[in-house]
Parts: sequence; C-alpha cells; structure tokens
Amino acid sequence: MEKVREIVREGRRVGNEDPRRVVHAFKVGLALAFVSSFYYYQPLYDNFGVNAMWAVMTVVVVFEFSVGATLGKGINRAVATLVAGGLGIGAHHLASLSGPTVEPILLAIFVFIQAALSTFVRFFPRVKARYDYGVLIFILTFALISVSGFREDEILDLAHKRLSTVMMGGVSCVLISIFVCPVWAGQDLHSLLASNFDTLAHFLQEFGDEYFEATEDGDIKEVEKRRRNLERYKSVLNSKSNEEALANFAKWEPRHSVFRFRHPWKQYLAVGALLRQCAYRIDALNSYINSDMQIPMDVKKKLEEPLRRMSSESGKSMKEMSISLKKMTNSYTSDIHVVNSQSACKTLSTLLKSGILNDVEPLQMISLMTTVSLLIDIVNLTEKISESVHELASAAKFKNKMKSSSKSDAGSTTSAVPIKSYEGDSDDHHHVVTILGDVVTSNNEGQSHGESSVDSCHHVAIEINDDDSIHDKHEEDSNIHVQTSRVSCGHTNASDLLNSGDIKKIII
Amino acid sequence: MEKVREIVREGRRVGNEDPRRVVHAFKVGLALAFVSSFYYYQPLYDNFGVNAMWAVMTVVVVFEFSVGATLGKGINRAVATLVAGGLGIGAHHLASLSGPTVEPILLAIFVFIQAALSTFVRFFPRVKARYDYGVLIFILTFALISVSGFREDEILDLAHKRLSTVMMGGVSCVLISIFVCPVWAGQDLHSLLASNFDTLAHFLQEFGDEYFEATEDGDIKEVEKRRRNLERYKSVLNSKSNEEALANFAKWEPRHSVFRFRHPWKQYLAVGALLRQCAYRIDALNSYINSDMQIPMDVKKKLEEPLRRMSSESGKSMKEMSISLKKMTNSYTSDIHVVNSQSACKTLSTLLKSGILNDVEPLQMISLMTTVSLLIDIVNLTEKISESVHELASAAKFKNKMKSSSKSDAGSTTSAVPIKSYEGDSDDHHHVVTILGDVVTSNNEGQSHGESSVDSCHHVAIEINDDDSIHDKHEEDSNIHVQTSRVSCGHTNASDLLNSGDIKKIII
Repeated sequence: MEKVREIVREGRRVGNEDPRRVVHAFKVGLALAFVSSFYYYQPLYDNFGVNAMWAVMTVVVVFEFSVGATLGKGINRAVATLVAGGLGIGAHHLASLSGPTVEPILLAIFVFIQAALSTFVRFFPRVKARYDYGVLIFILTFALISVSGFREDEILDLAHKRLSTVMMGGVSCVLISIFVCPVWAGQDLHSLLASNFDTLAHFLQEFGDEYFEATEDGDIKEVEKRRRNLERYKSVLNSKSNEEALANFAKWEPRHSVFRFRHPWKQYLAVGALLRQCAYRIDALNSYINSDMQIPMDVKKKLEEPLRRMSSESGKSMKEMSISLKKMTNSYTSDIHVVNSQSACKTLSTLLKSGILNDVEPLQMISLMTTVSLLIDIVNLTEKISESVHELASAAKFKNKMKSSSKSDAGSTTSAVPIKSYEGDSDDHHHVVTILGDVVTSNNEGQSHGESSVDSCHHVAIEINDDDSIHDKHEEDSNIHVQTSRVSCGHTNASDLLNSGDIKKIII
Repeated sequence: MEKVREIVREGRRVGNEDPRRVVHAFKVGLALAFVSSFYYYQPLYDNFGVNAMWAVMTVVVVFEFSVGATLGKGINRAVATLVAGGLGIGAHHLASLSGPTVEPILLAIFVFIQAALSTFVRFFPRVKARYDYGVLIFILTFALISVSGFREDEILDLAHKRLSTVMMGGVSCVLISIFVCPVWAGQDLHSLLASNFDTLAHFLQEFGDEYFEATEDGDIKEVEKRRRNLERYKSVLNSKSNEEALANFAKWEPRHSVFRFRHPWKQYLAVGALLRQCAYRIDALNSYINSDMQIPMDVKKKLEEPLRRMSSESGKSMKEMSISLKKMTNSYTSDIHVVNSQSACKTLSTLLKSGILNDVEPLQMISLMTTVSLLIDIVNLTEKISESVHELASAAKFKNKMKSSSKSDAGSTTSAVPIKSYEGDSDDHHHVVTILGDVVTSNNEGQSHGESSVDSCHHVAIEINDDDSIHDKHEEDSNIHVQTSRVSCGHTNASDLLNSGDIKKIII
C-alpha cells in the first residue's frame, strides 16, 4: 500500500515537472487505438491482413515526445524500409536464380554480409548521431524480406503491404504529434537557452550581496530559500546532452511558429557551450560564498565596489540577452552592460595596482585572488556570449532593435568609439575607453548555419595604459597586461579560444 | 570515388579505435544467419511458421556491443513479452465475454489505457534508466496480442509461439555474446577507470616541467607530441555518460573472470566522479601552462619547489592507485605520496607566509594565486580519491597489500600518527605532522555497495599552527587557516562536500 502511494506521488511529481508528459501519454494511446482499428475495419483488414500489425509496431516504436524526434524516427524508418525492401527483393531474386540447393546458402551469406556491414557502419559517429535507428531497421527489413521470401512467393506483394502499413503507422504518428498539442524540440531548445541565461543572470546579480554581506542568522527558511534560488544555476552545468539532443531533433522539424526550416540550431549549441563555461566559473564562485568565512570582511570590502559591479553588470547583460532571445530581437542593450563590467574590471586593476592589498596576508590572498580571477573570467566570457548571441540573432534573422550608440552597426570593419568613463571613483583623471577592433556585423550568408561560432570568439585582453605612477615600486612597466586568467573548467578546448585571432583591445 | 575512399578511411579509423567492433559486427551477422535458418529448416518452420520472424527481430534489436547490454535488453524483452502476453490474453478474454459489438470498443479502450499509462511510466527516472526497453516491448506486445486475438482464435497458440521464438532469438544472442569473444561492460568500466587514473597521473607528473621550464623553441614536432600526450586528460572531462552506461550494463552481467556478480559498480562511479572533478582542475591548470607567459619566470620560480612536489606527488599517488586497480590489490603505497603532497602544501604555505611574494605585482598575483589554489585543490582531491579507492577495494574485496606504516589499518576509530616532516627546506625547526581523525577501515558489510562514497569524503582543512612570527605585520592571528579553496567546477555539489562531518586536521 505504501509502495502504491509512493508510485502515485512519483507520478504526480513527474507530471507536474512537465504537464506535457501527460498529454503525450494520451496522444500515444490515441494513436495506438487508432491504428488498432485497422484490424477491426473489415475492408482494411481484407487488404492488409496480419500485416496491419506493422502499423501497430511502427506507432509504438516511432512515437516520441517531440515532433522532431518523431519525424526523425519516422523518416529513418520509412526510408530504411523502402531501401532494404528493394535490396531484399533483389537479393531474393539473385538467390532464386541459383537453384534450390544453393539458394538458402546464398541467402544466409547475403544476410550475414549485410548484417555485419550495417552493424559496423552503426559505429561511425556521424551515422550513430542521426541514422542509427534507420540502419537498425535496414538490417531488420532486409533479413525479414529476403528470408521470408524463401517461403512466400508473393514477395513483392508482401513488401508492398509492409511498406504501406509502416507508412500508415508513421503518418498517423507524425500527424497526431504535429496537430494534437505539438511539442516542438526547437521551441524547447529556444526556451531552455533563455532560461539558462535567466538563472545565470540571477546568480550574478545576487552574488555581490551574498559575498559581501555578513550572514545574519535571521530567518533560516528565508536563507534556505534564497540559497536554493541561487543554486538553480546548477542545472546549467549538465545541460549539454539535453541541448544536443534537442538540437538534433529540431533539425528534423518543419517550419513552425517563428522558427524557419533552417533555423541555426547549431548556433544555439555554441551559445549554450559558452554559457556552460560561465556556469562552471559560477559554480566555483558559489563555493567561495560558503567557504570564505575565514577571509575577514574588511579585506573583502577593499575590493567590494569593482567586484560587485563586475558581477552585477555581467548579470544585467545576461538578463538583457535572455529578454532579447525571448522577444527574438537583436538588441544591443546588453553591450552597454558588457562595457560597464569591463570598465569595472579596469577599476579593479587600478585598485590592485594602488597596493590596497599590500598588508593582506598572502594566504588570504589565495582565496581572494581566485575569486577575482573567476570574476574576470566571467566578464570576458560575458562578452564572448554577447557576441555569440549577436551571431545567432543575425543568423536567425531576428528583428534588429537599435538602442545603444556605443557600437556602430553598419558594415564597417573597424570602428573606434570613444566613451567617457563614467566611473564614480574619486580619481580626477578621466579615462577614455576606446573600442578598437573588428565590429563585423555578421549578416553574410555564409554564417547562417552558425558554424563558426566558437572559433570566432574574440580573445579579449584588457590592456591598461597607465600613465600616472601611483606607486614607485612598479617602475619596470607602465603597461600592465591584465591577461584574463582562463580558468577553463568547461568542455571547450581552452587553447582553441586562445588561438583565435582578432584581439580586441580596450585601451583605457 | 573520393567519397568511397573517405568512407573506407573512416571505417578503418573506427575499426582501429576498437578492433572489437569488427568482431561484434561478425557476431551479429552470425547470430542473424543462424536464426534465419529457422525458416529453412523444415521441422522448425512447420512448428513456428511466420512467427519465426520474431526470432530475427529479437536478434536485430537485442544484440548489443557488451554482454551486459545484451543481457539487459534480452531479459527486458523476455519478461515484458511474457507479462504483456498474459495480460493481453486476459484483456482479450474479458472483451470477448461482452459480445461482438462491444468487444472492439472495449479492446480499443484497453489498448488506449494501457498505452497511455505505460508511456507515462516511461518518464519515471528509475524506469527510464533500466527498464525503458521493457516497457516499450510491453506496450507493443499487449497491443499486438489483444488486438490480433480479435481475428485469430488460436490466441494462446499465437502467444506461445511468439514467446518461444522471442526466447530462441534472445538466447542465441546471449549465448553468442557470452561465448564468442565476449565484451564485458564491467571489464571495460574497470579498465576505463584505471586508464583515467593513468592520464591524470601523467599530466600531474609532467606539470612541473611544463610550467617551470621556459619553452625552448626546439623540435616543434616533439613539443606537439608532448602537448598531445599531456592533453589526453581531456577525455576524462566527458567520461560521465560513458561510465554511467557501462555501470548500468555491468549490473546485468553474471560473474566473469575476477568480477563477482554483485561487484560494487556504483563505487566505480563515485571514484569516477571525483576523478572528473580533478580533471576539471587540471583543465584549468593546463590553460595556465599556455597563457602564463606574462608571469616572469623568476616570480614563478619562487614557488617552484613546493608546487612541483605537490603536483608530482599527487601524480605518483594516482599512478599507484591505477596500478593497484589493475592488479586488484588494496595497496597503501599511494597514501605515502598523498602525505608527501600534503607536506609540500605545508611548505608552500610557510613560504607564502615568509613574505616571499611581497614584491610581486598584484596583477601577476591573480594568475599565480589561482594556480596555487588549483594545486591545493588537486592535493585535497587526491586524498579524497585515495579514500574512495580504498572503499572500492574493500567493497570489492581486493587482496590487501600492506606497505605503508603511516596509516593504521586496524579497526580503530581514531588514530594519531606523528610523522617527522621530511622537508628539505632550510628552516631548522621541524614540524610534526599529526593525522587526527577517523581512520575507519570500511570492511563493514553495509558499505559493500559503495553507496556512501561521496558522502563520506572527508573535508580536509590544513591548519597551520605557527608559533614563530616571521613577520611582525600579522600579529592578529598566529593561527592561520589555509582553508582549502574549493574551486569546485565539477558536477558534485560543493556544499555537500562541505557539510560532510569528519574534519581531518593536519596540524603542522
């Protein structure tokens, strides 16, 4: 009894997690009850006989959760059945020419060769990714047709019946999955990406408060809730396989709602990969919120202003990207926040150069500097992500929505836009931020598949041209390179990112 | 023509990567040719008729690469066919009682309910992991039997024939996969883990040379080769899904070679997860080898000795663990290296405390400190991994091989073992390393499934009890806690690790 109650609870949880699962279960039931009626309906049964069972089988095996997956399997199955049917008939014909004693031996050899070859082909990575099911059905149909042909001589008739029942089953699945509460894998991928942006943005916007405010032992429930909210980012860490599967399915899907047929799904994966890299850093940062109790607050406070701004501006920029994804517009508002976070980076390095940490215990430095390095990483990743989103937007032909004047959107290859630094710091000398580099709007057709996404990530180096020597001890170089420390915990090859050309410099 | 040559090349590559794939393809061909002979062999055909095709179908669908996967699918299919067959006959009988007009409607309702319920159950995570295929076959068989029964009245005979052909197909698959060049998923998992240890050990042992030796522009090919060798660790980053699949298959496998039936495969996953966490740190470290050109070598050299020792001793300890895994012995040699690497950690902190980095540019500190923090992390992870391997060894009943005297292996709950620090540093005052804490040898039966692995990871804090004040500026605390900085980029919940009790302190 307890067991049953547990199962019901689990069922309710699974259903609540995604109510479309319940709908999907009903759709499968509907499709199956429908094709079963082939058996009852006399004219159909007279025509197909026991072959009607192939329709039942097709429905059970092909009907998947999303339209893309169903279409992919259906097309795989239909094509494989067709090709294998043709080849099977050919093999049967060839064998039958050789006389009744050699025929079974020849057929067995054909089946053996075909099965061995096809099984081996299934190990090819490209075949495995998209056509694994098709090859499986190919082996099956070839064996069934060529062998069963040994007994029945109406082999052509058999192949024709089998093919038409498979088609009927497949078409029912596809029609029901498209027209009854469709679940589009593409739409899911799009929403998943936007929600991933949201959760990372939430963490980054809250990070400052968590890190710099002493934990008052107030309402434990409240604290718990905030922590849980903060740690929603953990779902992003493992989103890779999910994103890849969705993109794979989405490629099979026809045009639907706002998504065109050749929507750049690959570019979604590129953006997702960068987001995941960012999530790895955030995971590392998160561990410092918990464990850094031994760094005295007054040491942390010294770097509070720039660190807070770095994380909150990165967070805001991600929030903007999420909004522009949801609205499917190509907005440049996020770029303003990216520039803000970079200028906070600059403030930070000025602060560090000023020797503010000279009296800090080196052992405390380890933890503090790692936090700093992670935040610098996140700022740089945010810029890459922003670029990648712009690429996605232009490849997917999102509506343009100009808001920012900080980046020229014309097809110019190089632009230098001076911006007054609007830092609220007490220095009287104002810095001029100059963005140099290739601001190429990627409207060219070649990128419409978004293949160049990761490769074209710009390597960002913040070069600080420091003219006033605040401290005498650093005479040797007035040009300090804050090389972004690449704590690359992600799955992307760090050296790939390094080797990409296009160094965009922000000379402050 | 070019295309064909490319396919052949790809085929050769796939075959060379794992020659067992070729063997597997032959095995499938063999099994399929064998069951096809049911059609030719007259007595068998007379008995089963077209139902012989179920044997063909079973072979195509059930025969998988490893024994475990084949057995799992075979058992799933057999049990599902049996249960669904029984229920289908029951449903058919129930419907037939209601008269010829209501019967088809009732049957359609049964099929609908059954399909909808089963499809929903497939979303349950636990069902999805192990019984997804079984539920699929359940839906299929129930629909086929209950519906086809509408026409044929020899339904019992049909069910019996179908079941026996499925059994024959399944048994042929299982027998061929076990007795013809078997591929054991368990063996594969075991080797994978050992080779993962090897690649990480290789990186850690080479890290010192790569990081501290200026890259002489010598033989580019040689450098390339060394780099490629070094970056083999990248395969560990993405090993999660592979390990989980293998462990899942291994659970289905019977006793084979040295593996018992209930071998603690789950513990392999726990060790694998820790290894992966270590690999994330290594990935981060690797990016510093490439990008740290801007840190002057003389700054790096200041910390060379302890950093080198930390990485090389961790590497040696992993090498030892790999050897003990391969030999299936429970060796404690690795523990010596763990202790060595921890003592190097201690030397490092003494060095840092001595103000050796006082004149280092703070911006250079960011990158250097992150490297330090990553290495401290790796040292701590190595200890956790070593504990996890010991747990695995005792759960799997590896042969004990005592070599180290630094850890008492008796069932004592607390042991304090003083070790003379054998650092070669110039300080005259020797430190005494005391290992306090629960050295529980986990020979108890309850852990035989290795479930408690991750939870029982000890939280290691290195507490430095510093009595001589080298520098006057740190008067406020003579007790400095080098809290291990948890740059937790991995998939394991950082706070889980924190919350685990059992703080093992090394008071130096």
